[in-house]
Amino acid sequence: MAKDSTKIQLPEKEMPRQWYNILADLPKPMDPPISPATGKPVTPDELHAIFPMGLIEQEVSPKPYIDIPEDVLHIYRLWRPSPLFRARRLEAALGTPANIYYKYEGVSPAGSHKLNTAVAQAYYNKQEGIKKLATETGAGQWGSALSLAGNFFGIDVHVYMVRVSYEQKPYRKFMMETWGATVTPSPSNLTNSGREILKQDPSSPGSLGIAISEAVEEAANSKDTNYSLGSVLNHVCLHQTIIGLETLKQFEMVDDYPDVVIGCVGGGSNFAGLAFPFVRDKINGKKIDIIAVEPAACPTLTKGIFTYDFGDVAKLTPIMPMYTLGHSFIPPSIHAGGLRYHGMSPLVSFLYHEGLISAMALHQKECFEAAILFSKTEGIIPAPESSHAIRAAILEAQKAKEEGKQKTIVFNLSGHGHFDLASYDKFLSGQLEDYEYPKELIDKALHDLPKVGK
Amino acid sequence: MAKDSTKIQLPEKEMPRQWYNILADLPKPMDPPISPATGKPVTPDELHAIFPMGLIEQEVSPKPYIDIPEDVLHIYRLWRPSPLFRARRLEAALGTPANIYYKYEGVSPAGSHKLNTAVAQAYYNKQEGIKKLATETGAGQWGSALSLAGNFFGIDVHVYMVRVSYEQKPYRKFMMETWGATVTPSPSNLTNSGREILKQDPSSPGSLGIAISEAVEEAANSKDTNYSLGSVLNHVCLHQTIIGLETLKQFEMVDDYPDVVIGCVGGGSNFAGLAFPFVRDKINGKKIDIIAVEPAACPTLTKGIFTYDFGDVAKLTPIMPMYTLGHSFIPPSIHAGGLRYHGMSPLVSFLYHEGLISAMALHQKECFEAAILFSKTEGIIPAPESSHAIRAAILEAQKAKEEGKQKTIVFNLSGHGHFDLASYDKFLSGQLEDYEYPKELIDKALHDLPKVGK
Repeated sequence: MAKDSTKIQLPEKEMPRQWYNILADLPKPMDPPISPATGKPVTPDELHAIFPMGLIEQEVSPKPYIDIPEDVLHIYRLWRPSPLFRARRLEAALGTPANIYYKYEGVSPAGSHKLNTAVAQAYYNKQEGIKKLATETGAGQWGSALSLAGNFFGIDVHVYMVRVSYEQKPYRKFMMETWGATVTPSPSNLTNSGREILKQDPSSPGSLGIAISEAVEEAANSKDTNYSLGSVLNHVCLHQTIIGLETLKQFEMVDDYPDVVIGCVGGGSNFAGLAFPFVRDKINGKKIDIIAVEPAACPTLTKGIFTYDFGDVAKLTPIMPMYTLGHSFIPPSIHAGGLRYHGMSPLVSFLYHEGLISAMALHQKECFEAAILFSKTEGIIPAPESSHAIRAAILEAQKAKEEGKQKTIVFNLSGHGHFDLASYDKFLSGQLEDYEYPKELIDKALHDLPKVGK
Repeated sequence: MAKDSTKIQLPEKEMPRQWYNILADLPKPMDPPISPATGKPVTPDELHAIFPMGLIEQEVSPKPYIDIPEDVLHIYRLWRPSPLFRARRLEAALGTPANIYYKYEGVSPAGSHKLNTAVAQAYYNKQEGIKKLATETGAGQWGSALSLAGNFFGIDVHVYMVRVSYEQKPYRKFMMETWGATVTPSPSNLTNSGREILKQDPSSPGSLGIAISEAVEEAANSKDTNYSLGSVLNHVCLHQTIIGLETLKQFEMVDDYPDVVIGCVGGGSNFAGLAFPFVRDKINGKKIDIIAVEPAACPTLTKGIFTYDFGDVAKLTPIMPMYTLGHSFIPPSIHAGGLRYHGMSPLVSFLYHEGLISAMALHQKECFEAAILFSKTEGIIPAPESSHAIRAAILEAQKAKEEGKQKTIVFNLSGHGHFDLASYDKFLSGQLEDYEYPKELIDKALHDLPKVGK
């Protein structure tokens, strides 16, 4: 590796062949998801109505490492291993003594880390003869990824796209259609859940919680159709760990190791993907700060509460122990990026509750400012979601400068912002506002938590 | 390299450190560019009004290999070496015995091959203390690339963007602005050339020929401002040859070599970049079909004539010996992709005229159809320009199937189509029409050729 080099490219033969399952290494067991119908832990049979057994097993597996199927590896190799970059130009612009690295997941054809789990989920559904997958998407990263993955395995994909994104991001819709998926703005008239919302508010901007209800409802009502979720669940976090496992090998190549690991969080999957292998090292004695960064407009970890809640608005999902803003939470349309989910991955929630990771909430304008600096120094225009991680990394690098400390920082650049350039334009022309989700609204959304499991 | 692998990744240390200059290997000398003012070959001093000496020297250099400056190599390493893919899924979909490969240049942060020359041009201009670069852009790939390259070297960039693209592709504009460039729709009121056109047609959709006139005029009138061209000229083709040089090394890695080399052509630079090192091999005795593919809506090689013509509408540039549709040619707005230039790289024109390469013109609907098949099999959504190369590769692969012949085909996937998804939507919803440029209009545009040099 030449000294001037900034791209750390893992040879393809070094690509990990197993995912890392953090369930095996938790300091104590997590509380289980509970069926609201029975008040008891959800059984595999109950989940089997909408998920294939391959994924249900992973959801509760005690094995620390799980083999990645060959067919999944074949597709991963289209863009993996993804590069780890040393951000030397960003470091120079900040005048920081810190080494800043970023793992770039935007190299996938769908443009983000989401394809890591989309391919795996399509594979396990195909194994069980599933013909169609219903899902939701917010900013569009997940819907795009599942559309491509479904196409690879010959599975139809139906995406319920949060209406405000459907209208603001036509290119994401076109992308999904190019890969053969069907896209419906949510709330829609196709489901009871959607019709119920539209009855109350015909101009509802939609939310991930609503779109999830619609997709789950469609899957529950059809034998050949399953449901697919792009974040939150254990198996989704599992599939993303290839990110962190590759990153560890790449750090070995340059003989470095991070003091600080950073990822943005919505449902938690890209953060989990980078961070979990480092949490493993932390459990085993390494000293690392691991930081989850969320938007002030959707402050699940920093302002929500840790309790059982539904994953969706219509209360069709099991209830899960997690940080939540309440399942009826609808994020403000003013918020430009993704990271809009009311809840948080139970695994990420658990680690935060146990003090193994920390969290911070950032405003969107400071994040866009960081994204512009990043674009100009490193060349890549980041997704607004990823810009939260960039801003946090810059804050850490500035702290290192103030303290005169050498420090190694790594963050997950989870995707590119090619379909978010209208938001960049808004920011550059001064039309973007900051928004902090008010406590009164959180309190209001939290009044309707499920009784069971509390 | 595992048998299932489709990505051929050249190790970074193997990245070429020289460009290949085909001028040194031509079977006979090319006719020189001529100054319309003097009727004589353009002198370096005349060119120096708008170009730096470093590039002017490359324009006429007799050396077969030219060192890539270290500062340019540093930036190349952000995305280079670019991957060569074996398109096994596309091969399977076509049921062809042919091996199909594609070199993917869309991995650059600007999304296309254009950054290869943009970085080099910004570097040589910086060497001479130039503060600002004026340029044109059509589809937006070139303007984006120069915006990023200028930003890296601290040079302001002013992009005259063909008005029809400016209106149809706002995301490209936002991208350039994110990297700090200024974007003006062309024709504009900022230049005599622009005002002249607007006087004749206030709603002119613009053309590359007009935008070039505006940018050249701005550069000629300011000491600190130079002009930068994204295609056509010898030094631009030179900088792109890193594509073909890498491809040759990647073929060595898998012990294969192409029978057919394909690139799309507008001004000719991405084709030149892949093809010239193979043309060298052909001159040295290899048997290769080398095919330039252009749109039927702008059929410069297949329907134009080989003669001296201006590079722009306002006749500000030297006249060059090339295939041309006439400098007043304005491509139809109905044509969705780039590849809209009236002329063709003199080097590409010369090779075509000498029979070292062949050419074909394709309609846009068959190209979009090929692009959709490619997106679904290989995952990457291609730029509409690149889809011409894909369609040609498919035609070659189908021919191989009919003839029952094993054959190795490689094409240049010059960029991704993330900012062209509105055109994909048009195609998928049946709103896209084919258009063949009529002979009468070509004849009309060809009546106004320069007298000198004919």
